[in-house]
Amino acid sequence: MNKYPTSLENLIECFSKLPSVGKKTAERYALYAFFHMDEVDLIDFSNALLSIKKDIHICPSCGNMTEDSLCNICSDASRNHKQVLVVETIKDLITIERVNEFRGIYHVLNGAISFSKGIGINDLNIESLTEKIKNKEIEELILATNATIEGETTARYLYELYRTYDVKITRIAHGLPVGSDLSYADEMTILKAFEGRREY
Amino acid sequence: MNKYPTSLENLIECFSKLPSVGKKTAERYALYAFFHMDEVDLIDFSNALLSIKKDIHICPSCGNMTEDSLCNICSDASRNHKQVLVVETIKDLITIERVNEFRGIYHVLNGAISFSKGIGINDLNIESLTEKIKNKEIEELILATNATIEGETTARYLYELYRTYDVKITRIAHGLPVGSDLSYADEMTILKAFEGRREY
Repeated sequence: MNKYPTSLENLIECFSKLPSVGKKTAERYALYAFFHMDEVDLIDFSNALLSIKKDIHICPSCGNMTEDSLCNICSDASRNHKQVLVVETIKDLITIERVNEFRGIYHVLNGAISFSKGIGINDLNIESLTEKIKNKEIEELILATNATIEGETTARYLYELYRTYDVKITRIAHGLPVGSDLSYADEMTILKAFEGRREY
Repeated sequence: MNKYPTSLENLIECFSKLPSVGKKTAERYALYAFFHMDEVDLIDFSNALLSIKKDIHICPSCGNMTEDSLCNICSDASRNHKQVLVVETIKDLITIERVNEFRGIYHVLNGAISFSKGIGINDLNIESLTEKIKNKEIEELILATNATIEGETTARYLYELYRTYDVKITRIAHGLPVGSDLSYADEMTILKAFEGRREY
């Protein structure tokens, strides 16, 4: 016998599908929804869930999320469309956008090459990028994939793929995070910090 | 300019209304919903949210949640309907049900007397309980309100309210939690443990 009414058990089940939400937390969310959210809140919530799939699609130019034909970055004429920063995920794009420094456009790969997961270059979103490079629309390609085996492999692969074209390819610097203590840094980070050293 | 499409921002907003969910977590949930839940999952989730208010109501007899005219505990003929355990919230009821030991029925007050919050006895769900006591439907009333000022006040109040009626009123024992170390117990708990001592 269920302890809760079926519809509440259903909602607990739905909440527990969210990342790092266990049964206890899901229960807490569902009880909160029942006791503290009014009908309007619940209708809004319900509609919000439905509309993300209905209204959002992937920008055909860069792979970002958008509700329009092009995303708000690709359609922004004030940005430098000749400078393209390549990231693995939309979350990475958002992270960089938050810094509010980069004024070029993005390209979201939607993943990284991973031998263990069987993800190859053809599984990534690169078609529109290749097209732009072939059409000489890009001057600089900044590879900002993660500092992981997968990210490095992907960066290397993209470099090999596009090096013969007339495009400057750069990789973002890896080294010690600002504010971090040298004694806590891992070997790989220190190695990268040495490799990337510049004249003072 | 929003970093995310409006419909995703809406969903983030909805998730961030849940208890202890900050902006970052809400963002994580919303992105997960977008990337990892399919249309069916989202429709289920959306319906689950709508149905809790539509399908669930409060059991008129005990105050538990139910989708039927009486809750599954009140309508269970195999339980002892003459033994009523009084709890503050439905969560408390669920907690006790999980132990799978108590075979009587419940009464959910839906709160506790609190002077600071201005909650009096009339703000609590006691009408149907009073009715049952007056009609001599109850033999034992077990007060299982919390071991807090509010819970104690409420228990005392209910005792005063019903003591003249022909009903045995008991209070659950308070003392050291099983498996706990005496040296970590607070004064109040030790005091209660002494008060509640029994012959060995």
